[in-house]
Amino acid sequence: MNFVEVIGRKRDGFELTSEEIRQFVGGAGSGQLPDEQLAAMLMAICIRGASSRETQELVEAMRDSGACWRLGEPYPEAVDKHSTGGVGDSVSLVFAPLVAACGVPVVMMAGAGLGHTQGTLDKLRAIPGFATCAGRSAALERLAACGVAIAAQSEEIAPADRRLYLLRDVTGTVPSLPLIVASIMSKKLAVGARRLALDVKCGSGAFCKTPEAARELAEALIDVGARAGLGVRALITDMSQPLGDRLGTANEVRAALDVLGGRGDARLRQLTVELAVEALALAGRSPDAARAELVRRLADGSALLRWDSVVRAHGGDPAESALARPTSEVPVPAARGGFVTAIDGEALGWLAVALGAGRQRKSDSVDPGAGVEVRVRVGEAVEAGQPLATLEVGTRSVSVDPLALRAALAFRIGDAPPPPSPLVLARLGGSA
Amino acid sequence: MNFVEVIGRKRDGFELTSEEIRQFVGGAGSGQLPDEQLAAMLMAICIRGASSRETQELVEAMRDSGACWRLGEPYPEAVDKHSTGGVGDSVSLVFAPLVAACGVPVVMMAGAGLGHTQGTLDKLRAIPGFATCAGRSAALERLAACGVAIAAQSEEIAPADRRLYLLRDVTGTVPSLPLIVASIMSKKLAVGARRLALDVKCGSGAFCKTPEAARELAEALIDVGARAGLGVRALITDMSQPLGDRLGTANEVRAALDVLGGRGDARLRQLTVELAVEALALAGRSPDAARAELVRRLADGSALLRWDSVVRAHGGDPAESALARPTSEVPVPAARGGFVTAIDGEALGWLAVALGAGRQRKSDSVDPGAGVEVRVRVGEAVEAGQPLATLEVGTRSVSVDPLALRAALAFRIGDAPPPPSPLVLARLGGSA
Repeated sequence: MNFVEVIGRKRDGFELTSEEIRQFVGGAGSGQLPDEQLAAMLMAICIRGASSRETQELVEAMRDSGACWRLGEPYPEAVDKHSTGGVGDSVSLVFAPLVAACGVPVVMMAGAGLGHTQGTLDKLRAIPGFATCAGRSAALERLAACGVAIAAQSEEIAPADRRLYLLRDVTGTVPSLPLIVASIMSKKLAVGARRLALDVKCGSGAFCKTPEAARELAEALIDVGARAGLGVRALITDMSQPLGDRLGTANEVRAALDVLGGRGDARLRQLTVELAVEALALAGRSPDAARAELVRRLADGSALLRWDSVVRAHGGDPAESALARPTSEVPVPAARGGFVTAIDGEALGWLAVALGAGRQRKSDSVDPGAGVEVRVRVGEAVEAGQPLATLEVGTRSVSVDPLALRAALAFRIGDAPPPPSPLVLARLGGSA
Repeated sequence: MNFVEVIGRKRDGFELTSEEIRQFVGGAGSGQLPDEQLAAMLMAICIRGASSRETQELVEAMRDSGACWRLGEPYPEAVDKHSTGGVGDSVSLVFAPLVAACGVPVVMMAGAGLGHTQGTLDKLRAIPGFATCAGRSAALERLAACGVAIAAQSEEIAPADRRLYLLRDVTGTVPSLPLIVASIMSKKLAVGARRLALDVKCGSGAFCKTPEAARELAEALIDVGARAGLGVRALITDMSQPLGDRLGTANEVRAALDVLGGRGDARLRQLTVELAVEALALAGRSPDAARAELVRRLADGSALLRWDSVVRAHGGDPAESALARPTSEVPVPAARGGFVTAIDGEALGWLAVALGAGRQRKSDSVDPGAGVEVRVRVGEAVEAGQPLATLEVGTRSVSVDPLALRAALAFRIGDAPPPPSPLVLARLGGSA
């Protein structure tokens, strides 16, 4: 069928056939369909939605647009981890060695930063020598060596998703539940994961603004996983302030090292442990026993030791001294005293990008020494003049004063502390 | 505002501001917005619709994307004619000299054929030497010389419409009322017409399948015209069979010459006269007096004389003998006897294209000798073996037998004649 007619069927609200979905996704992956036709179809799906059958078939067609690594055959117990995108969120860097130290292999697809968030891939690049797995055999080698394989999203894996993802970013079609589900799940299935621990963020700094929206997304991901033989457990977690206290690339590696060493930011540690509990539950462990082992592995140094071997197996230098440091630091003082009632994580994320910790254009390089340190928490009492944050300047020349002004505006200070809000809002999903 | 956010507002069903509409149309005209963003916005408009204010502003922004000829200043009484696209429809070629012969100047924008229809521009190119007006001064010269100026849609007039029109054709966003209205009216307003006679087609071979859909489109066009100072009168006419009995380019010029000479196809003559009545009514004439004058001008040869001067003023050779003729003719016999109950004009239009009378790819050239002659009418009695149509082969080599088979399938023959259906279904609109 002519693809214009297929677009017209979705435009008019009809359900697409399997063949029509394959034509759409296949044409995106092969390059046979032009950007304008893909953009029109993406908008039609964004407005008209997709049935659960259509979503499932989008996932499978995107998975099949590239290589399938089938890592679940030699490593059926391997777990993958995914987050819908947060600020100050270096959970992945702690999660991978921590879960592997408990005897469960970890396979992760790391992405570059998008918008105001810093991506795991950029953080790993701050480690001198670190190289992600370029193919199936490299991934198998690293799983054998250290129990962890970290791959970058590449041309090889789900190329149709890659093209559609870039198009969605510029065509106003990012906030579509079936398209988000298809993008996430196609890549997980393409590497062959059988178990997935999901962190669905919720709040002002996240795609899902309400717990209801986050629950809907989590349920759709669990549903698609179940049909494709992928066990999924999900946490819905608070993203109304930055997760950890450091933003940046080398900076977030350091934050992860602190947690792996038994110290570090309490919220970052808590969320990592709870997500790792879900991962171990997928492997059949009881949550309480799992939590106890995870806490012990952080305290006794075995998680940190595993990090060293993960970094070495990926060609990197695990020494903390090898990480870039800022060349100068600029404090952001509080204009008044009171209680911190809100911290705008998205604004701080964009500031970190402006300092060089992310890309404003695709061609930008990332400055590993740049970042932001958040020095207070929501609910904390502060005095006028007390530093709320520190801007960390790397090797790039930036004019810091306007950024410091903007940073101060990201903190709201009131006369009373807000009611406390829990970090983990809900747990969903079953076993593998 | 970032254009992705503007797309998102229309995606979510919000009304766009004037500034946002200018950003969209301006970016289309200047080339600053890429095809994929325009396609996403077109689909959002197609599904979400547009308010009458938004439609009006789309029209005006598209008009202002290129040159404005302001022909209504020196020629305030000039009338334009537009049809939503028919098969065997050479009304324009009769209308222009006929109305001019009655003392009302005519300005027309001629377009190339699209899909299964043959465009006026392609028909005029079948006349050796004929050249459309390339700019305002050429149009004024020709109006002075013969009372008719025919311009081609060019880069100069409404370039934003030109780009969006091509995109709509490949992105499934053709059937959008506000986009159709904006495309038609922006060009009429850009040349500066003040009066417009509209032929809105209705039926199986037209965009509007029902009289209700045709009425909705006609009313939207009249509404936009009224706000922009353009008087519009519209006919809603039957397109459930080809209008005239000849399809092609030289072929349709010849059909027009027949009607101009007082003979020719009855339906083609009737529709042209009725549309010309509307044009003269816009100039303040009474419909009955106008109809009487129009019939007389066709009978006494003055319309045909005016055609000669129109063609000469545009550099062409008006002699009928200058037109290309087919190199061979293939009859399409009836498989059975009975009554013709339906003729699929769209199918015959595509056959004419296949013979060379239109383009299957943008780069194709048109063969002026190719076409189809329809030899029976809906309601007519036929005998088995009687020719239903003739395929006219030009200079291009085509395999005719499969085309003849397809042509036979375009005629439905039953045991009883269908109830007669009127050619003109409704009249709408007021005076200038």
